[in-house]
Amino acid sequence: MSLYFEDLDVGDQYEAGAYTIDADEIVSFAEQFDPQPFHTDPEAAADSMFGGLVASGLHTLSLSVRLFVTGFVNAGPELRNMGGLGMDDLQWHEPVRPGDTLRIEVEVVETTPSESREDRGYVEFQRRTYTETDHVLTVHSYNIVRRRGVDTDPEDTDA
Amino acid sequence: MSLYFEDLDVGDQYEAGAYTIDADEIVSFAEQFDPQPFHTDPEAAADSMFGGLVASGLHTLSLSVRLFVTGFVNAGPELRNMGGLGMDDLQWHEPVRPGDTLRIEVEVVETTPSESREDRGYVEFQRRTYTETDHVLTVHSYNIVRRRGVDTDPEDTDA
Repeated sequence: MSLYFEDLDVGDQYEAGAYTIDADEIVSFAEQFDPQPFHTDPEAAADSMFGGLVASGLHTLSLSVRLFVTGFVNAGPELRNMGGLGMDDLQWHEPVRPGDTLRIEVEVVETTPSESREDRGYVEFQRRTYTETDHVLTVHSYNIVRRRGVDTDPEDTDA
Repeated sequence: MSLYFEDLDVGDQYEAGAYTIDADEIVSFAEQFDPQPFHTDPEAAADSMFGGLVASGLHTLSLSVRLFVTGFVNAGPELRNMGGLGMDDLQWHEPVRPGDTLRIEVEVVETTPSESREDRGYVEFQRRTYTETDHVLTVHSYNIVRRRGVDTDPEDTDA
């Protein structure tokens, strides 16, 4: 079973989680993609405005995308996501620290059928990421979602 | 030597690169953070709207952050970045494919001294990411940048 464009209504909410982050992966991610001292060096981080090691905001975003894909897009019923167009209004409200457990809430904000291509529509999601104690990240994403029954994709035979 | 808030003027431009991406790391990154078939499975990708394996947009963003940090923030003179507040207007213009070499251009769009904290200011950057042939990503970032000579950080003795 799949979730098509027509199955998403403004105001629909989904939840996914959880993922617990540790210090080693904070450092390892940052060494690859965001090698700044407050993400890679606990001593330097203690002297930063964060007062201790914090995950790269990009890492928090990446884990929230992971939860979006594994806990929503790929979870049953599978969202027929064709790709992403962009993101907007990304805010890091609070830092994420070693031992924090992340979960997300996803809300459908707007749905717009494509005017030029009848096989797809555009969906704006607001995605909110939380630890046990804090709302740490908000972002809006714009996804291309397949419409029901207007293509010849053999995987759509369940439609 | 360091680059402080006062050293950044609207219109200043910086460049950084290059980074060549291969199929293995496209799949490996996507398996961790964005496990959708057009990022993890070359055969499924061939049947997608991309016509072949493409990097997760999150991966393209992550590599553009890497180039921003290694080729600009951490490059001499080091940008005294205190952290990030958020991002806006993230657009994936074209997909990134195995073998593509990424580079970025960074432009200072706006600088705003903090009204409540004299040790810092806010800087909006437009960051553009390119392959050899395409403009693949644009994003605006909001960074907190230390002001010159108004703190007691011992690392600031070069100020």
